[in-house]
Amino acid sequence: MYDSKTVLMKKDSLEDLISKLFLAAGLDDWQSNTISQHLVLASLRGVDSHGIIRVPIYLKRIEEGLTNKQLEVSIERETPSTALIDAKNSSGIAIATKGMQLAVQKAKKYGIALVGIKNSNHCGMLAAYTQYAARQDCIALATTNAPPNMAPWGGRERFFGTNPLSYGIPTGSETSIVFDMATSVVARGKIISAHKNNQKIPIGWALSKEGKETTDPQEALEGLCLPVGGPKGYGIALLVDVISGLFTGASYGPHIGDLYKDFENKQNVGHFFFVTRADLFQSLQEFKRSMDKMVKEIKQIPLAEGVERIYLPGEIENKTMKDRKIKGIPVSPEIRNDFIELAIKYQIPTDLITPLQMRENR
Amino acid sequence: MYDSKTVLMKKDSLEDLISKLFLAAGLDDWQSNTISQHLVLASLRGVDSHGIIRVPIYLKRIEEGLTNKQLEVSIERETPSTALIDAKNSSGIAIATKGMQLAVQKAKKYGIALVGIKNSNHCGMLAAYTQYAARQDCIALATTNAPPNMAPWGGRERFFGTNPLSYGIPTGSETSIVFDMATSVVARGKIISAHKNNQKIPIGWALSKEGKETTDPQEALEGLCLPVGGPKGYGIALLVDVISGLFTGASYGPHIGDLYKDFENKQNVGHFFFVTRADLFQSLQEFKRSMDKMVKEIKQIPLAEGVERIYLPGEIENKTMKDRKIKGIPVSPEIRNDFIELAIKYQIPTDLITPLQMRENR
Repeated sequence: MYDSKTVLMKKDSLEDLISKLFLAAGLDDWQSNTISQHLVLASLRGVDSHGIIRVPIYLKRIEEGLTNKQLEVSIERETPSTALIDAKNSSGIAIATKGMQLAVQKAKKYGIALVGIKNSNHCGMLAAYTQYAARQDCIALATTNAPPNMAPWGGRERFFGTNPLSYGIPTGSETSIVFDMATSVVARGKIISAHKNNQKIPIGWALSKEGKETTDPQEALEGLCLPVGGPKGYGIALLVDVISGLFTGASYGPHIGDLYKDFENKQNVGHFFFVTRADLFQSLQEFKRSMDKMVKEIKQIPLAEGVERIYLPGEIENKTMKDRKIKGIPVSPEIRNDFIELAIKYQIPTDLITPLQMRENR
Repeated sequence: MYDSKTVLMKKDSLEDLISKLFLAAGLDDWQSNTISQHLVLASLRGVDSHGIIRVPIYLKRIEEGLTNKQLEVSIERETPSTALIDAKNSSGIAIATKGMQLAVQKAKKYGIALVGIKNSNHCGMLAAYTQYAARQDCIALATTNAPPNMAPWGGRERFFGTNPLSYGIPTGSETSIVFDMATSVVARGKIISAHKNNQKIPIGWALSKEGKETTDPQEALEGLCLPVGGPKGYGIALLVDVISGLFTGASYGPHIGDLYKDFENKQNVGHFFFVTRADLFQSLQEFKRSMDKMVKEIKQIPLAEGVERIYLPGEIENKTMKDRKIKGIPVSPEIRNDFIELAIKYQIPTDLITPLQMRENR
């Protein structure tokens, strides 16, 4: 459900615009293109919470000197199959892209690989990294920690982030299976997106700061996210914080700087990328054949009442992507205004922000 | 809540009894002791679903020739940091214990390790393996697949097992953090345990085979388990099946033999053990100091209404263990009868099955 003033923009125009903005803000070509393509990919896949709405805050943190304009890939510790990267406060998407590339390279050579990254920033949508690995015929697991928004199970004060985890698995004739979940009932980004788009949120997503149920995204953003499955989501959030944060030497939980509110401190987020060749224990052909068989079997399961089809992880996002590549990516009036202001500020032609069409109110 | 006829038995007596039973069934000393200690540990920790109630079915499958009496640790593929073990249908607990030992050994030497096991059987409680690794100053992740009990999200036919995942993380002054969850709302074992103990189950755990909500464990066992968090639990169950099963070359989903019902086929379950040294990216002292700091901070979080304390993963189980080491392990009349029958059958003195005391009905 979009606002009547939500417009649609072409993938290429958005990539061009966003890349120019980051370039104007002082990042190099590779970083500007990488960040731009990553954010537009998220929006294309319908993961609006991690897409183009992040442009203004990323730029603001670069401007304020809270994110390093230079990309520094400083390998602090290394073995054939592992590496610890000190991001030295580089842009999260840029350093995480480099980190996953290194992990895949090592896994290709040594079978498995683990890359940890510390002193990093918000790295966008994890699915982008695990999808990349899956396309290289690897199985990948990626986690990152995040600023505090959930209480430990039984508590009533923010401690853990909505610490997401993602995986990517290659298949044969099918597209890769790509899963990406927040350990909260929903990603905080979805609440931010609802807020930006003037939508209400369902009961059960979050609590207000008084610990009460709420449908108001503003109240939810000031309150607590709830972990998925209660103690199970709490347990996974704790794991993600340990392997992304404490294990790599990055910050964790309540010590992570808030992306939107803390302009005094760097974030010091950590990322954890584990990759294995899909053909470590059998031929690639055998593995892919099993995967395709499983996918086919899942698709043949009788449907529950009211369900139209069974989706594999990432399949809805692929469907949305195909759709948005043709019809365009929805841009809310708030985001469009942000883009116009930023274009003026960075002296970029505002005609890049031309909507495809006006969207019907529906 | 125990049945009035539930008795309490000492840890040592149970270990002795169970070890003698497996020895009599034809397993060697090491296997008998390992399986016995594993099952009693699960019962001690309060994980009754994966404890001593598994003795009769494990023995039955050995008797019927469905589980190999010989332990065969056949390494089919190996690199410095990885190994694929063909279990050749050995006892699941025995081979998984060997597999985690190998993973820890490799991780100690090469930083990280991945051990996959195929052609295996039900391997008990994953927490036993990850706890072992954590005590060796490693962070471990363990998964196993299981016979079909959950539908893919949107379906109404069994496909995935309640595919559990577990992790273990060492700390400094605190005990290790050990997490173990089924990807269903609850472990199927908990429903089996409720059934054995004549207890009802809460709404929301499972559906009957007609797809209706139920509180009857019998109906639930014939029906479907529900994945935790809906599509999120489905996504994790799929990952666990791929990395434990399809990736190792073991069976998966609907092709896995049911432990309790299928006496025609071997199970061909797969296990996946990933281990990293906790000190891969910093000194062990630094890592443990951060862990202890985090634990302390979590304990200081203000409590939600009606909550007495915040627990870390594994803490409730440790508390139960301390308690049961002193007071004894509850043994229901059904399990006690099973033990008496088995002792007679295998010509083991039944006086090993002496309860500590009769328990008050409460």
